[in-house]
This record gives sequence, structure tokens and C-alpha cells, in this order.
Amino acid sequence: MALIVQKFGGTSVGSPERIAQVAEKIAGFRAAGDEVVVVVSAMSGETNRLLALAQQVAHKPSLREMDVMIATGEQVTIALLSMALNAQGVPAVSFTGAQIPIVTDSEHGKARILSIDETAVREQLNAGNVVVVAGFQGVDEQGNITTLGRGGSDTTAVALAAALQADECQIYTDVDGVYTTDPRVVPRAQRLERITFEEMLEMASLGSKILQLRSVEFAGKYNVPLRVLHSFKEGPGTLITTDDHEDSMEQPIISGIAFNRDEAKLTIRGVPDTPGVAFKILGPISAANIDIDMIVQNVAQDNTTDFTFTVGNVDYDKAIDVLKATAQDIGAGDVSGTTSIAKVSIVGVGMRSHPGVASTMFEALAKENINIQMISTSEIRVSVVIDEKYVELAVRALHTAFGLDAPNP
Amino acid sequence: MALIVQKFGGTSVGSPERIAQVAEKIAGFRAAGDEVVVVVSAMSGETNRLLALAQQVAHKPSLREMDVMIATGEQVTIALLSMALNAQGVPAVSFTGAQIPIVTDSEHGKARILSIDETAVREQLNAGNVVVVAGFQGVDEQGNITTLGRGGSDTTAVALAAALQADECQIYTDVDGVYTTDPRVVPRAQRLERITFEEMLEMASLGSKILQLRSVEFAGKYNVPLRVLHSFKEGPGTLITTDDHEDSMEQPIISGIAFNRDEAKLTIRGVPDTPGVAFKILGPISAANIDIDMIVQNVAQDNTTDFTFTVGNVDYDKAIDVLKATAQDIGAGDVSGTTSIAKVSIVGVGMRSHPGVASTMFEALAKENINIQMISTSEIRVSVVIDEKYVELAVRALHTAFGLDAPNP
Repeated sequence: MALIVQKFGGTSVGSPERIAQVAEKIAGFRAAGDEVVVVVSAMSGETNRLLALAQQVAHKPSLREMDVMIATGEQVTIALLSMALNAQGVPAVSFTGAQIPIVTDSEHGKARILSIDETAVREQLNAGNVVVVAGFQGVDEQGNITTLGRGGSDTTAVALAAALQADECQIYTDVDGVYTTDPRVVPRAQRLERITFEEMLEMASLGSKILQLRSVEFAGKYNVPLRVLHSFKEGPGTLITTDDHEDSMEQPIISGIAFNRDEAKLTIRGVPDTPGVAFKILGPISAANIDIDMIVQNVAQDNTTDFTFTVGNVDYDKAIDVLKATAQDIGAGDVSGTTSIAKVSIVGVGMRSHPGVASTMFEALAKENINIQMISTSEIRVSVVIDEKYVELAVRALHTAFGLDAPNP
Repeated sequence: MALIVQKFGGTSVGSPERIAQVAEKIAGFRAAGDEVVVVVSAMSGETNRLLALAQQVAHKPSLREMDVMIATGEQVTIALLSMALNAQGVPAVSFTGAQIPIVTDSEHGKARILSIDETAVREQLNAGNVVVVAGFQGVDEQGNITTLGRGGSDTTAVALAAALQADECQIYTDVDGVYTTDPRVVPRAQRLERITFEEMLEMASLGSKILQLRSVEFAGKYNVPLRVLHSFKEGPGTLITTDDHEDSMEQPIISGIAFNRDEAKLTIRGVPDTPGVAFKILGPISAANIDIDMIVQNVAQDNTTDFTFTVGNVDYDKAIDVLKATAQDIGAGDVSGTTSIAKVSIVGVGMRSHPGVASTMFEALAKENINIQMISTSEIRVSVVIDEKYVELAVRALHTAFGLDAPNP
């Protein structure tokens, strides 16, 4: 008998029919003897319907009242799912965030969980009930309703799993697991049986939008085994866990290939090479609320240096304007840039003990005559920026080079 | 500066535009220096939308979960109205029933209020805020969300007014007050400036569906001055209060004429006149969940008696079947009945000190050749049952006879 926390998102509970399907799935776990806590989001479309109402009464609605309103979305779902479970003969009881209580700080719309009192949930589990919890919401110490912000239901599920010391936290989605890369680009991409929290974080931040970054961090911090599964298809999904699993001897060096087409590259040339120049260039960019991703500074020649960095595509025009102003201020040369780049990354905890990984990557790209424009590395990741038009070619070449291709059927 | 509790029902807050209009009205009271607590219902249509969802997941949904779901309706409205008030520069803060808390018993779907802690509301009023409260809902002592049942928002408003010792509880509706009778039947019907709780209870139970019976009882019990007003038209409405008001000398004997077409009459003849016969006849009717209104038993002749009573039209067929079975059991004569009757009542606390009122009523009906089939009286009411086709004629005749007609314009 295991204690499992399951999370179903807005699409999975998007209609009464789907809620009934979810109830059926939960009933299966109960029949197998598991204790189940279910975290649900608002039915898909409901949050937008509410936001539209708010926009009609106020241009800048109070954040406190937005939370009071938005929190009703999940409250409807917990009631409906509990009813559906009862209808299938499974005793169930619902909890809002405030009823648990899930205590958060008072940052309405993006509150952070401070503590969870698991007493009531435990009592209901002991009484034989499935416990259905409203995701995405909590209550501050003054009793005000709060919401956790986008993706908050994943966080609720992980936090509950941590508080209850659950055996597993299962996140049900519209994919059947985490893949070695996007199967639309590489048909022979494979579902991963397991992946580490660190790898998942790198994959997620690089554009694999299966899981909310914050919930993966949270799961890693509290060591909650996380599993990504498909809501309506059978299958083991992908287990996200710490890297000290038993079969680590057989662990592949590279777990996956991530890519991102949504970045733009900016270069400023002939920058006087003095201490603090990086801050002078990037400070104004950050001040303009633009997130910077990769940064490369070449060694100085003739007391000047070239400086290249990437930002999100949407911020490109603004960043170019800021950078041109900076160039004038600091007496640098010309400013150039392009949005037609892509970032391709290999991710794997195995590279810690395999120093040759970057060379293998560069060799594979060279073989395809793909020029590398920038390089950036972390402990478990190597990223390169290339011309956008080569992205599929690069991903396929790397997928093969690192032995990730599924065997021919 | 007065403390006013105002209640706006589902139609008054049925769209973002109407919510903005309600906010404007409240802003007016605030500008005049009043402290305002507002109780609101779910937007019209919302409760039915939710009920339809529930029906799609379960045939007999759990009452606890129904309350969790239904309570979101008012929660959305309190948030929207608070936003609308803020947008008009009026500081406002919302409360769900659980946040106040309004503590009820655990009878889901028809809970009764046990206590209200007014501390938080008072704090917010002192801080200069309009307080917007979700009607119709509360929380039991275990923290479960409850609802008060139909018309519950009126009860919430009255209970809050009592707890806060408010100067007035204003119920906003789609009529501009309580009338001497239905203006559609008597064009010269007049709006009453004031009416007593007792009179209002008699009027309400006789078919004037402006206020929920329970809330009027509650207001009377705690002596909360209640005012019925139109949501979107200006005017003083009708004040419902105790009968010891200053101008009671000039009080009319009769306050209003009520009528009800929705009753049916049943007669059982030749009933053996033995003790307990009333229970033998009416017991099975009540056991079949049929409400009985008027009861008339004639004096016995030849050791048998005739027995007549009225029930709601909708229960007529069922009641006839039950009564026929009873007739056989107790050896009574034939059973007959009709749905084409109407009940007409005169209501007024003045009749306590004016014994001739019933005679005046019978005389007025006799003048119009209207036959009286049954008579029933209370301390402040005389009701007669007549042929349904004479109802308008009877109401107009009585309205004139008791001097209730508005002066000619």
C-alpha cells in the first residue's frame, strides 16, 4: 500500500466526462490498495472566463479580490471530482487551500507556501477517504485567500507530497512522459524511464514545458519522487528522482537534447576592456526588465573586446535600443544582432564523469557543417547557439551521436 | 452616520454592468457618510450552471460537495463587487461566509445560522472599508462549507444586521416596495410606507413573494428594521418594523389584501364523528409530504361530519388518492375536490382592536354576489376561499371597501 499524491491539470478535468474518467483512474489506484490525495486545477477555460468578468468591472482589479475570485475555479473542480468519485462508490472528501490549511505569504497572485498542516488530510485518509485538494491556492496568516501563480497546482501537489511524506507525486499531463527530445523533430526519440531533478530542471528551462520549474525544484529540495504520466493513456511515464538510483552504472551519459528557437542574439563590438564593463553593458538591459540567457565575452585584443548575449525573441527590439544607447555612453563600436538563431543543448548528469562529451557534441555538429556561434556550459549541460535553419538537423545528429535513437521497430 | 446592511440578489448583480450600477449606489451611501455592509447572491444563472455540472457527474451528488461547489457563486460576486467599488474609489474588502465566520449547523443545503463573529467586519468598517459578504453560506464547527438554502442571502443580511446592531437592513429587489395588493389586479393599489413584521409574514405566506419568510421572522425576532427597495430605481421603499411606531394612531385597520390561486380544496363527507378523526384523515396526507393549509370541520349531524381542507395545486392528485384510501379505511362517505378555487385574505394588525373587520369583508363579497366556501382566521388575518373566477373582482371590492385605493391622480 502506497501513499500517492496525484495532480490533474485543467485539460484533464475540462469537462464532466473527463472528470468522470479521472475518477475512474483514481478508483483503480484505490482498488489496488493505495491511499490517494488528488490535487486539481480549475476546469480549462474557467480561469479565463473569470478574468474576463473582472476586466469588465475594473481596469486594475485588486489583487486580493482577484484571488478570492480565481480560487473558485479549483473549488468547483474539487466538488465535482469528489461527487464523481462518490458516484463510483469511492468515498471522497474535498478541501480548499484554506481548509487544509495551506498557509502562504500574502503576495496575492504569486504567493509562496510557508507551511502545510497535514493533520486533516491524514485523518480523512485514515477514515478511508480519497482526499481531493484545490491546487494553486492557499490562505495567508490573516485568513485571506491567496493563489500561487501559474503552474501553482504542480507546486501544491509536490508540497502536499512532501508534507505527507508520500511515496510518489504523480503529475498527469497530455504527454506520456519526458522524451530524449521532441518526437516531432526526431521520430526516433524515446520516452525516458527516469531522469534526475537536475536534468529535468535543465530540460524544463530549455523549453520542455511539461512541468513547472518551481515544482521540480521543490520536489528536488524535499526529495519527493515525481512521475510524469498521461491523463488518459496507460503507461509508466517518466520518474523524476535523485541521481543515486541503483542502476546508475547503466545510466546514459546524455539523457536528452533540448532546443529553443525563441532566443535572439545581440553583439556589441569594440568595447573598451576595463573592469566593470559587463555590468555597464548588461545593467541597463536588466533595468529594462529583459531576461538575459547566455553571455559570451571574448578575450581582449587592442584593449577592446567583443561582447555577445542572448535574450528572448520578444525582447529583441527593446534590447537593441538599450544596447545602442549603452554603446554611445561607453564609447563602444557597432551593435548588431539577429533573431534567427536557435539554442541546442545536451543534458545529462553522466557528463560529470565523462569529460569528452562536449567534443562529441562539437564533432557531430561539424560533421553536418553546422557552425557554432556561441557556447555555454553548466555542470550537466552543454549549450550551443547555431543558425536557426539548422536546428532540426543538429538535434537529429546529436540524438544519434549520443546513442539516444530508439531501435528500429 | 448610520450603519446599513444592504442585500442585492442574483438579478441585481446578474452582469458586470449591473455590478457596476450596484457599486455606484453603494458609493452614494458612503458619500452620505454611512457605514455599509453589503450581502450579495450568486450572479443570476450561475447556480443553475453549477447544478447542471453536478448532474453530469453524479445522479445524487453528496450534499457536502454540493455546498462546496454552490458556495463559489457568491464568492465570485463578492470579488467582482469589491473590485467594482475599488474602481469607483470606494475601499472595499470581501468576506466569504467561512471568513467572517458565519457559523451554522451541519445541515448541508439548508443549514441554520448558529452564531456570527462580527469582529472582523467591525474592524474593516472601522478601517473605512465597505464590507462585501457572500450571502447564503456559512461554515460549520468542523470547518465544512455550508449553504442556507433558498432565499438564504436575505437571512444572511438580517443575521449580520442583528449581529452588528445595524440601523437598517435594506433588501434590494425588483419591486419598489410592498403594495396593498398586486397592482396588476388593482391598478389603484398603493405602496405601503411601512408594515409590521407580523403583517409581512402573513402577506408573504399568502403569496407575496418579495421577501423570504425566514428572513422576516428572523428580523422580527431580533427587531432589525427591514426595508424593501428597488435595486435600480430611487424611492423610499417599504419599511418593515415592529407595530409600536409613533404614528400607530393613524394606522389603517387593514394593510393589504393577499390572494393565492395555487390551492385546491378537498372534501370528505359522512365521516364518523369520533375523537381523533382529524388525525386519521390528515395524518396520511402529511405522511405523503403534502402541506395542508386551511382546515374546516363542520359540526356533526347524525353522528357524522364533513371535513374540508386545502393543499397546493401541485399536490392535488396525490392528495385525492390518499384521501380516497382513508375514506375506505374509516368508513366515510364520498370524497370530492376542485382546483378552481382561490384564497383571498385581508391582513392588518389593526383588526385586533376592530372586531367588525370580518363583517365588513363578508358584506363586501356578498354585495358582489361572491359565495364564500371556507373561512379561516388568525389574530391579524381573515382568509376566505372562493370560486377562482371571482378572485380579481373580490380583491378589487375589498381594496375599495377597506379604503386602500389610491386617490385619483
